[in-house]
Amino acid sequence: MADDNAKQSLLSETVDPSHLNESNALKRRKIRRCGSAPLSVMNCSGHNGIGSLPHLKSMFVKLEPSFKQVFILLAAYLAVGTLCFYLIRDQIKGRKTNGVLDAVYFCVVTMTTVGYGDLVPDTILAKLLACVFVFSGMALGGLILSRAADYIVEKQEVLLVKAMHRHEKAGPAEILKDVETNKVKYKFFLALILLLVLIIVGTLLLSLVEKLSFIDAFYCVCVTVTTLGYGDESFSTGVGRAFAVFWILSSTICLAQFFLYLAELYTEGRQRSLVKWVLTRKMTFSDLEGADLDHDQAVCAAEFILYKLKEMGKISQEDILLWMERFKDLDVDGSGTLTRANLMLSQ
Amino acid sequence: MADDNAKQSLLSETVDPSHLNESNALKRRKIRRCGSAPLSVMNCSGHNGIGSLPHLKSMFVKLEPSFKQVFILLAAYLAVGTLCFYLIRDQIKGRKTNGVLDAVYFCVVTMTTVGYGDLVPDTILAKLLACVFVFSGMALGGLILSRAADYIVEKQEVLLVKAMHRHEKAGPAEILKDVETNKVKYKFFLALILLLVLIIVGTLLLSLVEKLSFIDAFYCVCVTVTTLGYGDESFSTGVGRAFAVFWILSSTICLAQFFLYLAELYTEGRQRSLVKWVLTRKMTFSDLEGADLDHDQAVCAAEFILYKLKEMGKISQEDILLWMERFKDLDVDGSGTLTRANLMLSQ
Repeated sequence: MADDNAKQSLLSETVDPSHLNESNALKRRKIRRCGSAPLSVMNCSGHNGIGSLPHLKSMFVKLEPSFKQVFILLAAYLAVGTLCFYLIRDQIKGRKTNGVLDAVYFCVVTMTTVGYGDLVPDTILAKLLACVFVFSGMALGGLILSRAADYIVEKQEVLLVKAMHRHEKAGPAEILKDVETNKVKYKFFLALILLLVLIIVGTLLLSLVEKLSFIDAFYCVCVTVTTLGYGDESFSTGVGRAFAVFWILSSTICLAQFFLYLAELYTEGRQRSLVKWVLTRKMTFSDLEGADLDHDQAVCAAEFILYKLKEMGKISQEDILLWMERFKDLDVDGSGTLTRANLMLSQ
Repeated sequence: MADDNAKQSLLSETVDPSHLNESNALKRRKIRRCGSAPLSVMNCSGHNGIGSLPHLKSMFVKLEPSFKQVFILLAAYLAVGTLCFYLIRDQIKGRKTNGVLDAVYFCVVTMTTVGYGDLVPDTILAKLLACVFVFSGMALGGLILSRAADYIVEKQEVLLVKAMHRHEKAGPAEILKDVETNKVKYKFFLALILLLVLIIVGTLLLSLVEKLSFIDAFYCVCVTVTTLGYGDESFSTGVGRAFAVFWILSSTICLAQFFLYLAELYTEGRQRSLVKWVLTRKMTFSDLEGADLDHDQAVCAAEFILYKLKEMGKISQEDILLWMERFKDLDVDGSGTLTRANLMLSQ
């Protein structure tokens, strides 16, 4: 969650200047310098000797598996799975085609939890191996959903918005702003379009290659993308299975990602109406008293912002207390403000 | 996400006083009054006439389906599903036992996407109906995971911690604090224990009722909880299917929830090391300049807290700019602070 927010703030920094409808360089520099924005300072002028700050980024980016790492992990998983199931191919019963093809097909059907049952393990070793591969496959699927799938959709997003703005005279700033404000909506539509394409392609190929009727092909597609996999209809030919390997992987992940975006869209809608409600609510004297952190009978901008972010549930009382204590440690002269003199004294 | 945070802040409010190791009522009141805590004001002293604030809670709680609503939805889904599949029981082929039992069993196997294939739709109508039920079942499963399952685990959490502290003289405040600090960890362990119990119960019942060997029973359990459902081993007796209805629903949801807690635990660990890093990092003059929102060459407590929360990625530059603009609207005399006089002028 922290990571999402950090990413969001990096992105918003790119868009903010246009957000204010002020495009001159002076104003921009002002925003960079004063906007309570350590992350933006790090990104926009990371070379100006802030010292340890760039470490932050590298340190926490490293902990997060990147798109490339997830892709390598998936390739390794499929390679090991194919090898294992190829070696014990005599311990798997069912409709068979080519040895290697069946192994990779069985691996994908197991990993995505589709589990048609057209190929099933027949010995204790094969059964235990299938158990190991389905659990690790589920974990890998979660990793793909949380990192790689979203990354791919995000990459396509700017292209989609650019295409939509083709006939308008929209500059890169406007397009970026549009992408930023409607981020989740565009992602949702992209996933929906991709899902529909995958369903149509799957239906066509099942009816052409596997010679299923149109209804049966569509039924098999639905049974597969949802990972239901009854197994009454499945891929039984070599060509069908070669296609199935890629199609099952992408379509099951696409549907899961679609549901995730749907949930995100709903959450964002709620968040927006909450912001709207807090924005229109009138400040009362009690609010003023509550926001006054330093008891000077006046609420400065930062106190007001903290109070409103707390009201929206973005930050908690615990967060504020944690940093309040740290502030008191730094404020060695007890003046209630930090100055250069304070810093030199405390460090 | 906003909702999670809001919930968190409500909870943290209960725990905060003990957090500071100060238990006298005076200090507590001070925290309530000054801690930039609109939500806490609403909860701890909601009767003191703040006017429109209690609306906030009711308004946004209403939008969120409660545990009870999700349970009713699940019951309705199963009732409709059972009725539908019972009415078209002649259009479903496979190993059959009792009519109603097979219908509810087929409904659960479809909803959870286990899809053994021991019962499969045989006509176009039955196939399309299965498609409708698997898609709506997936959405319902997501709803259960996001609301109800977490709610149940959270309820059990306090009991677990109480049992762990049985031999110590821990007061309710200490227990609540322990629950709060290790929330995700306890939830994770609870889900793990529940999952192990469900796996053992499932294995025992499959070997006793379905007369499977121990290894086959365990294999069938793994194939089921992961929703793989090859269908080579499944529930074929009446007693087995009656048990399967409850067991499949709870075990598949339990495993999914377990994976969710695992991801949450990882995210929380990252978040904690980020907080630690930001806490130990020394403030530089550039930081001081960046944090100084109102350019008075001094950083007050609220400015410092905002800067640190931004650095941790909890809030974004966009959040700050949004509320900064709102502040400027309210600060009609342009003094840089809000006072009672400002409020009376602006409203």
